[in-house]
Amino acid sequence: MRMPHTALACAALLLTPAAAPPPQDQASIERQFDAAIHPDDLRGWMKTMAAEPNQVGSPHDRANADFELNLFKQWGWDAHIEPFEVLYPTPIAEALELTAPAKFTATLQEPAVAGDATSARTAGALPAYVAYQGDGDVTAPLVYVNYGMPDDYKTLYRLGIDVRGKIVIARYGQGWRGLKPKLAQDHGAIGCIIYSDPANDGYGVAKPYPDGPGRPPHGIQRGSVADMTIYPGDPLTPGVGATRDAKRLTRAEATTILKIPVLPISYADAQHFLAPLEGPVAPEAWRGALPITYHIGPGPATAHLMVKSEWGMKTIYDVIASIRGSDYPDQWIVRGNHHDGWVFGASDPLSGQVALMAEAQAIGGLLKQGIRPKRTLVYASWDAEEPMLVGSTEWAETHAEDLKKHALIYINSDENERGTLAVGGSPDFQHLVAGVAADVMDPETNVPVGTRERASLRVEALEPDASPRIVAAAAAAAEPGRDVPLAPLGSGSDFSTFLQHLGLPALDVTYEGEGELGGVYHSAYDTFEFHSRFVDPGFIYDSLLAKTVGRLVLRSANRALPQQRASDFADAVTTYLAEVKKLADTERRQAETQASLLHDHAFALAADPTKPGRPPKPLDMVPYFEFAPLDNAIARLRRSAHAYDAALAKNGPTLPTDRLARLQAKMLTIDQTLAPEEGLPGRPWYKNLVFAPGRFTGYGAKTLPGVREAIEDRRWGDADRYARLTAAALNAYSDRLEEARATLEEDY
Amino acid sequence: MRMPHTALACAALLLTPAAAPPPQDQASIERQFDAAIHPDDLRGWMKTMAAEPNQVGSPHDRANADFELNLFKQWGWDAHIEPFEVLYPTPIAEALELTAPAKFTATLQEPAVAGDATSARTAGALPAYVAYQGDGDVTAPLVYVNYGMPDDYKTLYRLGIDVRGKIVIARYGQGWRGLKPKLAQDHGAIGCIIYSDPANDGYGVAKPYPDGPGRPPHGIQRGSVADMTIYPGDPLTPGVGATRDAKRLTRAEATTILKIPVLPISYADAQHFLAPLEGPVAPEAWRGALPITYHIGPGPATAHLMVKSEWGMKTIYDVIASIRGSDYPDQWIVRGNHHDGWVFGASDPLSGQVALMAEAQAIGGLLKQGIRPKRTLVYASWDAEEPMLVGSTEWAETHAEDLKKHALIYINSDENERGTLAVGGSPDFQHLVAGVAADVMDPETNVPVGTRERASLRVEALEPDASPRIVAAAAAAAEPGRDVPLAPLGSGSDFSTFLQHLGLPALDVTYEGEGELGGVYHSAYDTFEFHSRFVDPGFIYDSLLAKTVGRLVLRSANRALPQQRASDFADAVTTYLAEVKKLADTERRQAETQASLLHDHAFALAADPTKPGRPPKPLDMVPYFEFAPLDNAIARLRRSAHAYDAALAKNGPTLPTDRLARLQAKMLTIDQTLAPEEGLPGRPWYKNLVFAPGRFTGYGAKTLPGVREAIEDRRWGDADRYARLTAAALNAYSDRLEEARATLEEDY
Repeated sequence: MRMPHTALACAALLLTPAAAPPPQDQASIERQFDAAIHPDDLRGWMKTMAAEPNQVGSPHDRANADFELNLFKQWGWDAHIEPFEVLYPTPIAEALELTAPAKFTATLQEPAVAGDATSARTAGALPAYVAYQGDGDVTAPLVYVNYGMPDDYKTLYRLGIDVRGKIVIARYGQGWRGLKPKLAQDHGAIGCIIYSDPANDGYGVAKPYPDGPGRPPHGIQRGSVADMTIYPGDPLTPGVGATRDAKRLTRAEATTILKIPVLPISYADAQHFLAPLEGPVAPEAWRGALPITYHIGPGPATAHLMVKSEWGMKTIYDVIASIRGSDYPDQWIVRGNHHDGWVFGASDPLSGQVALMAEAQAIGGLLKQGIRPKRTLVYASWDAEEPMLVGSTEWAETHAEDLKKHALIYINSDENERGTLAVGGSPDFQHLVAGVAADVMDPETNVPVGTRERASLRVEALEPDASPRIVAAAAAAAEPGRDVPLAPLGSGSDFSTFLQHLGLPALDVTYEGEGELGGVYHSAYDTFEFHSRFVDPGFIYDSLLAKTVGRLVLRSANRALPQQRASDFADAVTTYLAEVKKLADTERRQAETQASLLHDHAFALAADPTKPGRPPKPLDMVPYFEFAPLDNAIARLRRSAHAYDAALAKNGPTLPTDRLARLQAKMLTIDQTLAPEEGLPGRPWYKNLVFAPGRFTGYGAKTLPGVREAIEDRRWGDADRYARLTAAALNAYSDRLEEARATLEEDY
Repeated sequence: MRMPHTALACAALLLTPAAAPPPQDQASIERQFDAAIHPDDLRGWMKTMAAEPNQVGSPHDRANADFELNLFKQWGWDAHIEPFEVLYPTPIAEALELTAPAKFTATLQEPAVAGDATSARTAGALPAYVAYQGDGDVTAPLVYVNYGMPDDYKTLYRLGIDVRGKIVIARYGQGWRGLKPKLAQDHGAIGCIIYSDPANDGYGVAKPYPDGPGRPPHGIQRGSVADMTIYPGDPLTPGVGATRDAKRLTRAEATTILKIPVLPISYADAQHFLAPLEGPVAPEAWRGALPITYHIGPGPATAHLMVKSEWGMKTIYDVIASIRGSDYPDQWIVRGNHHDGWVFGASDPLSGQVALMAEAQAIGGLLKQGIRPKRTLVYASWDAEEPMLVGSTEWAETHAEDLKKHALIYINSDENERGTLAVGGSPDFQHLVAGVAADVMDPETNVPVGTRERASLRVEALEPDASPRIVAAAAAAAEPGRDVPLAPLGSGSDFSTFLQHLGLPALDVTYEGEGELGGVYHSAYDTFEFHSRFVDPGFIYDSLLAKTVGRLVLRSANRALPQQRASDFADAVTTYLAEVKKLADTERRQAETQASLLHDHAFALAADPTKPGRPPKPLDMVPYFEFAPLDNAIARLRRSAHAYDAALAKNGPTLPTDRLARLQAKMLTIDQTLAPEEGLPGRPWYKNLVFAPGRFTGYGAKTLPGVREAIEDRRWGDADRYARLTAAALNAYSDRLEEARATLEEDY
């Protein structure tokens, strides 16, 4: 039988609105909401939920789902657990040894640290492991590949070093974990070790825990290495929900599962594998903080790497809670955060989860006072985000049709820390975010969090290596009348499927910059004790996250008129296209320069003949692209957007009910015009033509990805083709805007 | 009595020309010159001269002077030793201990290494020491100040850390050694420790010697800490030669002597002082490669630092050799390299010294065949460069009037290594350099060294952090018809006094980039063994330096027409002014941005209130400067230069003898127009208004220094004043050019 994947829709439809509440203005609602947020509640929930290992499949992860289910119910929500059956491997056996020039067996263990009782409760925890790697038992010389990103392989090529038949050892950082073994595999490596260099999050950054927040010598970063840039979620069910009776791929057909074995290790272990390497000295940018000369190899260091997993199906448990809207029950605000961790998961994900719970408790309190949101709220506590956004993806795929009809926005959070507000997401909701940021007070500085965010961006932009995005954001931040642009979303948390597969607008909200959670990320030291001491003492910012997201939810739920400001979207897309054109010009110039240097044998002449090396592979010339369709579409979008925004401001407040309903219907689903069926080249699951995770960045977003990545990857034909497809999507958006404006301007 | 400081001029005047040689074309002369360069000679000389410690005042340094004197005489040169009496301190007692939180006594010793017999012969060597520091005995908490440069003190200010009453510990690198204790002293520190971080030249860069060329754990960089940016040379005799009867300042009057004690230490020692520091974690750019968390302090690490020097006068020995020119004996080509080292001094300075000796031997051989240079050659082997360019400065000050009348150019070398040609110097001699670079073949690639230099610049310019100067040089290098611009000269070797005090044109010539001498620089490991193994195996590039500089000398000596190409100078000055204007605009924009951020309390709001910190000191607004005089002077210079170059090309080859003599006289001293008496603000010894060592960079050059540094140091009035003074100097140069052109164009 089909699993209760329609339960939510049924629940939403069947719930009867409560008796009409006393009219309340939004400010009054928000004051009452704030008053119900108690840091001690968040502390207590985290303490309970982070008390035992809570990775997917663990008893405590299931217990946490039940714990939340009961709380949601107590708080007056209609709640249930929605399970899915997914492929989720767990380690049966693993080994890593240095076999030459000396013997060393990697410890692969994280000992308890003084003063952190939780860190000793690792019974039942995952060992050093990354999910969705291949089974394997290999012995080969090692090659150090720095971060293991595409540019690193270009450097290796220049040095004449080939990883075929080798085991690569890469350090964490710079790009998404899963790309490291994937690129190693693509280049012919037969195994991959990933380690945490002390320069990145160990003693190079801070004294190691428990003396400070730096990664302890034996700290290990677990994680997923599924190829999420093809599709996230259960590898066997791309595009459909992993319900019990879903049609499934075989494991061999699942393109997101790696083929080579991989182990993550600590820097205490890594030093033994790196120190004996010879071959070229690593370039300056490749050197970490271990007290060794970083050489690249290959060999003479040789390693034996063995990993064998159990590949059975596991049940995961999403907790879904809803409150039916009073006025617009068929318009949903979806809010989520995952509950599974890699070990104890205090900061990641429970710091965001306890904020979500605090919101749910406060909204439940409002409901008990008769204050019901006008739109339907759906709160989700996802399971199995860590393996690869599995809980959210399977739920979103299962309920895709309902979501595409009803969901106005998806609002996500995940780990949270003391610091400055940072929101990524769909630019048409930028003004909503700016409004909330102007109204939530920062407890450290007693100014609105938006004011502090502006200050931080302006100071950050002073750094010599500030990115163009930060510089542009700082310029906006310096003008009180302008909103701070939202960062575009890539991947790495549960917003991905909503935004990039379904085309829904999404926001991802966090406070960041002053907690110091990098040193324990995905390790057995991400504990309640660590979070309470280094990440958010007093649970002040976790509570602030609840107040911030709560406002985004309640304003989205209660404002009758559409929240989108179309001109913000038009401005953002204008910026994205300018970046893409600049990229094309830069690539063209680089190819020309390189051809000239190759012609003159400059690389060979400049090289030290006593050291290995060779010129780079020739780049093909970069054509001029057919950007005109995009230029025209964006010019039209700008006109349509400004006209719509003006019409909304002028006529929206007095719009009669029937036309308001037609306007809402037009705008509820407008962002989906940006995600036509075709999808991106080579990864059609990703349908959004404005936002995608980078094929070779993972976490990092690519805007106008069909065009941008075609240029980056030198698929010239795709660049022109996706310029047309993206233009068509933007024109569809403009069509919808113009219809909405017509609705606003009828009779005027 | 006055010492024989006029001996050279007398010798040059009294020598009788040999019988007229058989006519020889320049190419034939250079072929014969090349044939007389034998790598084994260079190897033998270095082995002898680097066999014992040869620092100033050591018996072996004196022996080396005598050794060279005898060789010069054997080779047919008129040679003598010219001594000077200079203030040169040597250590009597020194101590460095960590006194809290634990006890540790710095070893301050460099043990011998296996396979390097020389490294064991340290009897009579200097211990860890830097020259011209203050005597002192201090105990105070430590503060880590990164490189100890001005930007580092801005960072310390932002962190609220004051070095007053503290001992600073700085790492070597980024700016000149002497600036580190000087800035520390200016900020109120009472002592200074300078150490070699393994990230900069130790195991972070290469396996430590003897396994590789990296600095060994106990390697120590000695050096001078005199404030050379005020004036170099003997601290007691600025502006005059330190002859026995010279008028001298008292030691207290000598502004270039530091007041605080300073010791250089190894990274093996430094780790004990750095590891116990607490206080803020050092910013990312401040972190080295020691396996510790770099904290700034102050304390709790506390050190006791004591240095006491013997401050007597010492005799130094310059070896001066000359050959009187056949046709233009009153026009001198001066060529120099120092002979004193810090310990054995194999690479620094003997690699360049043996090249100079090879040139002298080959030129002596030509002389014996009757081939005499047309101009007079003066070859100088300087003593006491290491303490602060003492030997060259005192000689140049002693012979200033003769040099200003007779010297056409000064050509310098110093340490040399395998690699690519790199020449810095006066832009009007750029075309001379390019001509030589086109004719000397690189032994590794079998193309002209100029072709290889162009390739290297073009490849270097591909690096993301390539400087604007490299990018511009690479652009020129990509066009076969254009010469590669010479890098402007700052300080750090013996060209300084000639170029910057006397206003003579100068060149500094080296091969670099493939030897790996950084790890032993100024340590007891800069040995014959190290040089032979890692820096220039086979003495191939030291021999190539001789062939290169020999051509520069012989072409300068033999070409009847002036060597200068004035348009190259005009182009260079045009570039320098563009840089200065950009600097002014950047400073203005930064001041405006900073004022806006301070007004909005952005620094305070962006800061983590749990960490120490404060906003930056407010910058005063940057006015618009009176650049018009400079613009006009450079516009005129460009016209004058192009007209002169065209006239020289057209009429030079057929110029009658009397007019050739008048043209030579005009152009012989033209560069001195750029060094009027007034000198730079606060350091009038430096007279050149186009080139100076940076007040806060030391080694690094500042072009148009009167204007540029006034803007950098926010002396707005000086900027306008020096724009006028520099314009006047450039106009004087143009006057001279126009006179020279008139001489060329008479009767045409």
